[in-house]
Amino acid sequence: MRQAGRYLPEYRAIRAQHDFMTMCKTPELSSEVTVQPIDIIKTDAAILFSDILVIPEAMGMHLDVIESKGPVFDVPIRSVEQIENLQLEGFIERLDYVMQAVKMTKEKLNNRVPLIGFSGSPWTLAAYMVEGKGSKNFDIIKGFVYNEPAAAHKLLQILADSVVEYLNAKIRAGCDAVQIFDTWASILSPPDFEEYSLQYIRYICENLETNGAPVIVFAKGVSSYKNLAELKCDVLGVDWSRNIGDVRTEIGGAKGLQGNLDPTILFAPKEKIRAETERILRSYGTGAGHVFNLGHGITPQTPVENTQYFVECVKELSKQYHAEAED
Amino acid sequence: MRQAGRYLPEYRAIRAQHDFMTMCKTPELSSEVTVQPIDIIKTDAAILFSDILVIPEAMGMHLDVIESKGPVFDVPIRSVEQIENLQLEGFIERLDYVMQAVKMTKEKLNNRVPLIGFSGSPWTLAAYMVEGKGSKNFDIIKGFVYNEPAAAHKLLQILADSVVEYLNAKIRAGCDAVQIFDTWASILSPPDFEEYSLQYIRYICENLETNGAPVIVFAKGVSSYKNLAELKCDVLGVDWSRNIGDVRTEIGGAKGLQGNLDPTILFAPKEKIRAETERILRSYGTGAGHVFNLGHGITPQTPVENTQYFVECVKELSKQYHAEAED
Repeated sequence: MRQAGRYLPEYRAIRAQHDFMTMCKTPELSSEVTVQPIDIIKTDAAILFSDILVIPEAMGMHLDVIESKGPVFDVPIRSVEQIENLQLEGFIERLDYVMQAVKMTKEKLNNRVPLIGFSGSPWTLAAYMVEGKGSKNFDIIKGFVYNEPAAAHKLLQILADSVVEYLNAKIRAGCDAVQIFDTWASILSPPDFEEYSLQYIRYICENLETNGAPVIVFAKGVSSYKNLAELKCDVLGVDWSRNIGDVRTEIGGAKGLQGNLDPTILFAPKEKIRAETERILRSYGTGAGHVFNLGHGITPQTPVENTQYFVECVKELSKQYHAEAED
Repeated sequence: MRQAGRYLPEYRAIRAQHDFMTMCKTPELSSEVTVQPIDIIKTDAAILFSDILVIPEAMGMHLDVIESKGPVFDVPIRSVEQIENLQLEGFIERLDYVMQAVKMTKEKLNNRVPLIGFSGSPWTLAAYMVEGKGSKNFDIIKGFVYNEPAAAHKLLQILADSVVEYLNAKIRAGCDAVQIFDTWASILSPPDFEEYSLQYIRYICENLETNGAPVIVFAKGVSSYKNLAELKCDVLGVDWSRNIGDVRTEIGGAKGLQGNLDPTILFAPKEKIRAETERILRSYGTGAGHVFNLGHGITPQTPVENTQYFVECVKELSKQYHAEAED
């Protein structure tokens, strides 16, 4: 999950001088904030600082990121013509700043920890591109896919191919693992999730050239992991609404699981942070395959001290549970 | 789920002349908009037009409902002192306008269809009272319950007792069924859901004087229905993220199930509306216990014609599945 961010004074100091997209597009800055949590929070992996919407931005959609409002496309996709006019030619070259950031981050990390790169899923990217911004009910994107399924599938396939190309480039640039975020998985009914989201994630997983880099799929809020367990990927993300042990049982150990502390637990007193960390470790149980993580991104007001304490707790308490994995 | 609303021109005509809270507080107006969907959409039950936040408002919290922003408390709860200063004495008398609306609605319905009354769950009410408004991460309410658990439980118990009194009064006034909405159930991890929400819903269910009125519990987005199935209630609401047939299997027929069409399907072409209705009926299967409904409230831009068609589809297609229930 996102590690760099406004909860860190060191991040805010840089952010105060540059807007969000400038930070994404300047490898010196994005690599610097990517490495900050490794030094300050002491996590076991780094996550490249970026935004899922750099892909549509590189296809010619103008993007504003206003911190209080979230990302906004001033001209959202509403027609087949707009889909046909997306600037696919050369989009990956226009994302070369991401690849430069990967290389620069790898240098700064100097093999201390692995680097994870990420992409939004086609469905989550399409939801932003069609809605134009975050939404409460997502009635615009859903109205679009229900009323213009051919156009919707055209857009989703374009995005699926683009995500393959983008993640392959990130792996070639040096990412040690890649993650696909389907933030808006849970707004679809089970058959619509398969039709508009999961089939495109499956396509991506089957077409990546990973060179051995693990692939993590995080479909936030899904109620069933059975179909996800059949993907050609290595790890599934689990948000905090499920007991991670129940998910392990449900998928019969087919994948590693990443999760699943509620990020707002980091606002709790230390005893609660420790108790919840222990509860999750106990829920997963012993043996390999558990990547301890937050169940979603860290929030801006999170106390740094609590985040540091959380990482200490994971490192200390996981030993007895993960012993088998470390052999 | 909410039936009256901005998608109906007849509602907008009244809303144009009165602010939202005036409509809630004026029995002539709230009963009129409650009955509108029965005449226009032809649903089998009416849901009293109201807002879950009338309870904290009757306890002295000033509430503004701004249509584009949602409800806002200008002085949210942040301390034990504020909880102690809630005006509990006489709060139910200050909600007499709701009971008058129930009586007036019953007269207007003239036994055509039953009337459902509702309340927010203690957790969902507390989330609004402490956050002050809707939230993305709910870090204020969660920080509050984690750091001041005694104060949080005091507030939740006050709300649980108040909801019992409120729903009992609604039943006495004439409601034929009552529903408890836990809109924010899914933001809690499983053990926190039990501690901060479910135990208070259980308390309400065990302390209601229903006089035979069915009790419906809707905990939106929960991943497991096992614990809910043990509540002293009659029906569980299911949002559209689950297959309703899987939930039926999970709870072993312990309760009726209400749901679960994605409300945005009403933006789809008629064939899709019909197909989804049929899919849900087939998923639940034959026999008694299915209350067909949307998986959440209807959204403002929903086409009226599609909503009417949806109700027609349910009435037509459910016959073969619900035959046993009608014997």
